[in-house]
Amino acid sequence: MAETGLLKPALKAIAEDIDKSFDLLLPVPGDPRDRLVEAMRYATIGGGKRVRPLLVCATAALFGVSREAAVRVGTAIEAIHVYSLIHDDLPCMDNDALRHGKPTVHLAFDDAAAVLAGDALHDFAFEVLSDPATSGDPFTRIELIRTLATASGMNGMCGGQMMDIVAETSSFDLPTVTRLQQLKTGALLSASVEMGAILGKLPPEGRTHLRGYARDIGLAFQIADDLLDAEGDEAAAGKALRKDEAQGKETFLSLLGAERAREQARILVEQAIEFLASYGPEADLLRELARFIVERNH
Amino acid sequence: MAETGLLKPALKAIAEDIDKSFDLLLPVPGDPRDRLVEAMRYATIGGGKRVRPLLVCATAALFGVSREAAVRVGTAIEAIHVYSLIHDDLPCMDNDALRHGKPTVHLAFDDAAAVLAGDALHDFAFEVLSDPATSGDPFTRIELIRTLATASGMNGMCGGQMMDIVAETSSFDLPTVTRLQQLKTGALLSASVEMGAILGKLPPEGRTHLRGYARDIGLAFQIADDLLDAEGDEAAAGKALRKDEAQGKETFLSLLGAERAREQARILVEQAIEFLASYGPEADLLRELARFIVERNH
Repeated sequence: MAETGLLKPALKAIAEDIDKSFDLLLPVPGDPRDRLVEAMRYATIGGGKRVRPLLVCATAALFGVSREAAVRVGTAIEAIHVYSLIHDDLPCMDNDALRHGKPTVHLAFDDAAAVLAGDALHDFAFEVLSDPATSGDPFTRIELIRTLATASGMNGMCGGQMMDIVAETSSFDLPTVTRLQQLKTGALLSASVEMGAILGKLPPEGRTHLRGYARDIGLAFQIADDLLDAEGDEAAAGKALRKDEAQGKETFLSLLGAERAREQARILVEQAIEFLASYGPEADLLRELARFIVERNH
Repeated sequence: MAETGLLKPALKAIAEDIDKSFDLLLPVPGDPRDRLVEAMRYATIGGGKRVRPLLVCATAALFGVSREAAVRVGTAIEAIHVYSLIHDDLPCMDNDALRHGKPTVHLAFDDAAAVLAGDALHDFAFEVLSDPATSGDPFTRIELIRTLATASGMNGMCGGQMMDIVAETSSFDLPTVTRLQQLKTGALLSASVEMGAILGKLPPEGRTHLRGYARDIGLAFQIADDLLDAEGDEAAAGKALRKDEAQGKETFLSLLGAERAREQARILVEQAIEFLASYGPEADLLRELARFIVERNH
């Protein structure tokens, strides 16, 4: 595939659109709830690569879905992603001080505000999806909601996070680490692609290739994260690194070694791109995004 | 209204049905996520008065809705209620050791498991509601989801919880305390009645009286809670009491005094029952439930 230079402007555009969307949908009420909404805004506006919203928009664009609808769905998924980061950064979880280059929510506000801001963003995602502005078709809205709730709950992200905690005191093998990562990070990345296809009214039986793409970039994303955790630059990452080894967790990196892990990520990206073979240039952004996932430095 | 003795068997039946429902819908997966699901089961099975599910079922029964559908919706609302208790009990929030007469989730498991179990129950509620088993009609499911997400997020329960935190360092007046309680406790109680009516396909314009009932019992419920906090028995309550005064919060009790607060709760219950005037004996359970809310000792 030739480098088409679609990605850079797309990342810029989605960052702007998602910031605008959170700004619009999270007005400060001007009452004693202000601190809650300010914490929600602090966590959501102006940070993050917005990979998940971009996956929604790039997938939805394959099927001619309006940018507005795709951005709304991307906003909902990003709200889930951000709420999970807020809770994950809490002292009783990973106890992180830095996120997207600024103090984590529990440090900028306090632990209670961080718990509540996460909880409220969690609801916010479902409020956005259930609103008719997301889709006039209730079947589409229900399918979006079911997909997101499943990807983020005990059979998705939350389940993966619990496995991640158990990993600190267990010796997981490669299949178990793969399963952990498929739940912890993969489920929400896959849901992003799936929800783009749902918006595009692609029937489930037509989503097989896109699901293959999503699964492979999800694993590649996590391997790249492991490598960044071990080798990356904290300033570029905007968060603390070298945590996996300190916590004694088995990761793709500890199990495969750096060289094989890097090779595995490259193979997964090529496989992901293969899954898009039936699409023409309209899928070039998804192809570039797959490469970006392993080549990014943060 | 004559005492019809409907309440006691109804409370027993709903407690059994909700326990059974959580037991069925939360199977332990038999993998490294077990600890998460065990924490979810610990928090949901075998505890609580199940007032919210009973409100759903009693309202839905007015319109001939199947018990099975009403119990599913009650399970979803109870999942939201329980998740909020788990997070509220955390050391960084209310730091409570006892809930429903047993150690709180963060003590029985740990803080991280409590955060995640709450988060996963939060998703679980939307998974249950978005499932076709709840209602074959996607419009009904969407309306249920929207109602619950709104009642539990920043414009409902979470907003009220933030106001409750602010209350510790502010001097709220009666209208502000009323607003706080309408959000913190009232929103989910109102949603329970509303969702019963949604299941019954009652159009929004037909819900005015039921909404009046729900609003009034919601406030009465909170006044009763304030009185129990000040005067109740910790063993019967199964949780720590005398917290409001220790935290220096203005409550209905501190603002009105015990006598006027008790009188206000009684007036609200009579008003709530007035709102049911257009219903016959089929609403007797809702009437008894309104009285129970102020007369309960836990």
